[in-house]
Amino acid sequence: MNPIIIKKISAIVGPAFCTTRREDLHCYSFDGAGKIFLPEAVAFPATTAEVAAIMRLASEYGFPVVPRGAGTGMTGGSVPIRGGLVLALSRMNHIVEIDAGNQIAIVEPGVITGDLQQAVRKFGLFYPPDPASLKFCTIGGNAAECAGGPSAVKYGVTKDFVIGLEAVLASGDIVTAGTRTEKGVTGYDLTRLFIGSEGTLGIITRLILRLLPLPEHKETFLVTSTSLASTTALVARILNSNIRPCTLEYMDRTAIRVVTDRLSTPPPPGTEALLLIELDGDRDTVDHQTARLKALLATEPDCHCHHAASQTEVDELWQARRSISPATFNLSPHKISEDVAVPRTRIPDLVAFTERLSAELGLTILTFGHAGDGNIHVNIMLDKDDPEQLRRGESAKERLFRQAIALGGTLSGEHGIGLSKALFLALELNDATIRLMKDLKQLFDPHNILNPGKIFPEGVV
Amino acid sequence: MNPIIIKKISAIVGPAFCTTRREDLHCYSFDGAGKIFLPEAVAFPATTAEVAAIMRLASEYGFPVVPRGAGTGMTGGSVPIRGGLVLALSRMNHIVEIDAGNQIAIVEPGVITGDLQQAVRKFGLFYPPDPASLKFCTIGGNAAECAGGPSAVKYGVTKDFVIGLEAVLASGDIVTAGTRTEKGVTGYDLTRLFIGSEGTLGIITRLILRLLPLPEHKETFLVTSTSLASTTALVARILNSNIRPCTLEYMDRTAIRVVTDRLSTPPPPGTEALLLIELDGDRDTVDHQTARLKALLATEPDCHCHHAASQTEVDELWQARRSISPATFNLSPHKISEDVAVPRTRIPDLVAFTERLSAELGLTILTFGHAGDGNIHVNIMLDKDDPEQLRRGESAKERLFRQAIALGGTLSGEHGIGLSKALFLALELNDATIRLMKDLKQLFDPHNILNPGKIFPEGVV
Repeated sequence: MNPIIIKKISAIVGPAFCTTRREDLHCYSFDGAGKIFLPEAVAFPATTAEVAAIMRLASEYGFPVVPRGAGTGMTGGSVPIRGGLVLALSRMNHIVEIDAGNQIAIVEPGVITGDLQQAVRKFGLFYPPDPASLKFCTIGGNAAECAGGPSAVKYGVTKDFVIGLEAVLASGDIVTAGTRTEKGVTGYDLTRLFIGSEGTLGIITRLILRLLPLPEHKETFLVTSTSLASTTALVARILNSNIRPCTLEYMDRTAIRVVTDRLSTPPPPGTEALLLIELDGDRDTVDHQTARLKALLATEPDCHCHHAASQTEVDELWQARRSISPATFNLSPHKISEDVAVPRTRIPDLVAFTERLSAELGLTILTFGHAGDGNIHVNIMLDKDDPEQLRRGESAKERLFRQAIALGGTLSGEHGIGLSKALFLALELNDATIRLMKDLKQLFDPHNILNPGKIFPEGVV
Repeated sequence: MNPIIIKKISAIVGPAFCTTRREDLHCYSFDGAGKIFLPEAVAFPATTAEVAAIMRLASEYGFPVVPRGAGTGMTGGSVPIRGGLVLALSRMNHIVEIDAGNQIAIVEPGVITGDLQQAVRKFGLFYPPDPASLKFCTIGGNAAECAGGPSAVKYGVTKDFVIGLEAVLASGDIVTAGTRTEKGVTGYDLTRLFIGSEGTLGIITRLILRLLPLPEHKETFLVTSTSLASTTALVARILNSNIRPCTLEYMDRTAIRVVTDRLSTPPPPGTEALLLIELDGDRDTVDHQTARLKALLATEPDCHCHHAASQTEVDELWQARRSISPATFNLSPHKISEDVAVPRTRIPDLVAFTERLSAELGLTILTFGHAGDGNIHVNIMLDKDDPEQLRRGESAKERLFRQAIALGGTLSGEHGIGLSKALFLALELNDATIRLMKDLKQLFDPHNILNPGKIFPEGVV
């Protein structure tokens, strides 16, 4: 990117909103995956028209453009591995409209997910997707990676709430997809094609989101168990008993251990696993579902169910749950963090497999996460400066992927492929499918300027 | 299609499953849109491999292939307007697996929607999409057109229940999309790209469907009103009062009139419109929602709410609702039947517009349908043999489309574009979006052999 290009970008966004200062570039060089690649410049466009002008410039000069929300992704999706321009969408952070009557919101991509949740709450409405980073991450990034969260077990993930969008193509053309109506079948479903495409097909510049009425009531339960196998098997039992929790989170004993100090009442000794369960809805429904849940749990001899008595207690439990990922670093300096998903009846098999893997390879492996939808976060703890440990860790990761797929599952439930999983794409998809996806990439982005090197294994660095 | 091609197709599917007899061709020459085009041959493949072999042949010889379920579509999606081969998927009608533990089903495309509903019901499970043709139509056709139905207001449409699929491309390559898990972000969302693509991008040969627990209880209400405006405004009021009906169907006075003879207790004189409302869930929830609904309706002076007392009565109401479309032919020999959708607060505007249109053009226009999701079926009654009436009807159709879009809506809620709406695509989508969709078609089907002439205006015949 020569000075002429930088000057032209500055002219588009204004000189205050384009930077090539090294200290600025550093801030836009990494995400949650931990790999660092400096961009050559960062621009902060304010409008779709500015994004379109930048893409026209990028097409003309052939420099990479990597869109970025808050950089909280877990697979390197927003990391500029081939340099070029990071397009930071933080200024496009307006909630354009909340249409309460039709229960939709129209937002720019830089809106913080938690801010949107707060804003719609004032109208008695609810935007369910709740990634752990919801206080920082953006709707645009959530859409690009198709982020999930605990509420997905009942409500679904980001893709289930985006009913339309506007995107800028590599050429600078602006396309629209979907409608303000829940139903719509006018032409191909471009909305979903952009969602989860990790910025490789276009830059999402506006989103139409569906909202739900805010549930009136919620109850929280902590189910501790002295048996790991019973706990993992309990997940499908609950969901097959006409109980529809809005949270069904799981932690194994190691995950519990790393956050025990956050709990004023630690789980009883001998606890091997726990489930954090929430029920929401109107009061009567919650009461009814609570009775059903308690009746089911009464038949589980290894389990103890504690019904949270106050909001303080609930907040403490969530605080503990959300602290697992950072707290794991008390165990070792690095980790390989994966988010495979399996059909929920296969969770016991997956977790038993990770236990065997841990024993065989001599590595601490934690499992926790969104058990209700079979999306288990597997953290393989290690010291990457020890080449031997790193080798064992990488082996564990590949075997985990193969096992998840053998169990009918997928490489990624909600983190995306990005850089971290690109090498493993062929474990899940056949040649014809990968070829078709690459052809799609080629069609949308013939000069490979949109977030180059992601999803497909050629990009791995 | 010369005899050599026919012979080769026969060799693939077996001679009993390929026909060129004129009386057979007639059976596969039309759908609910009423336009007739004879194919040159019809084949009945039994496996994905046979479909793939046929597509390789079609690519080699360049003949059109039009996939077909039960031909119940409303926009000409399965009509072979350029001749060639109709690929009737009626033999690929196996429910491959019902995985009750994970609440999913794997099916072939020729499975009848109602049959699947019955089959999963035995496991206490529920497949919600319920197009009016559910006793005849197929899951594959539902997916190709993204069919909806009354339950969409609570549960969503076909696309919301297909989590993965297998498809044969124009080249004969077999691709897979999605997974058996609710979550999954491995590469681009090909599942949704095939859904609603009306057979123009590939032949869907297998589907992975998500299921829900069967609701335990349901209550049905008939709300009649002496005010059309109050009724259409009531739709959004109900949905914004934390009431979540699984049915919120609307009929205007003309729709009521054509089916009155199916009702043992006709609506009271002076009825201008009605809503058919159902609440489902566990008993307590339904009771709670019922109380809320009745309290709301008590504030509506123009309305009378009748709570259905028996299953017989409920069946009769549904029988009447499902008979509207055929019964309209008692009013005039032909109709233009459209399924625009608007944001639900705009239903009063849309319906008032059709009333004005009717008065101005001197045509009977009925409105009824899935008011809960803003998807209003507008039937413009006419005699097509009267050129003057036809001209007025076509004018009404175009003005209806323009109005729906001006209200923030869409050309089609659930019927697709097919042939009938292709000319109007540019009313809803900008040039760049249509160009991108055409580029996608070109990428998937470079020789234009997959259901040629659909969706895009060039195809209109």
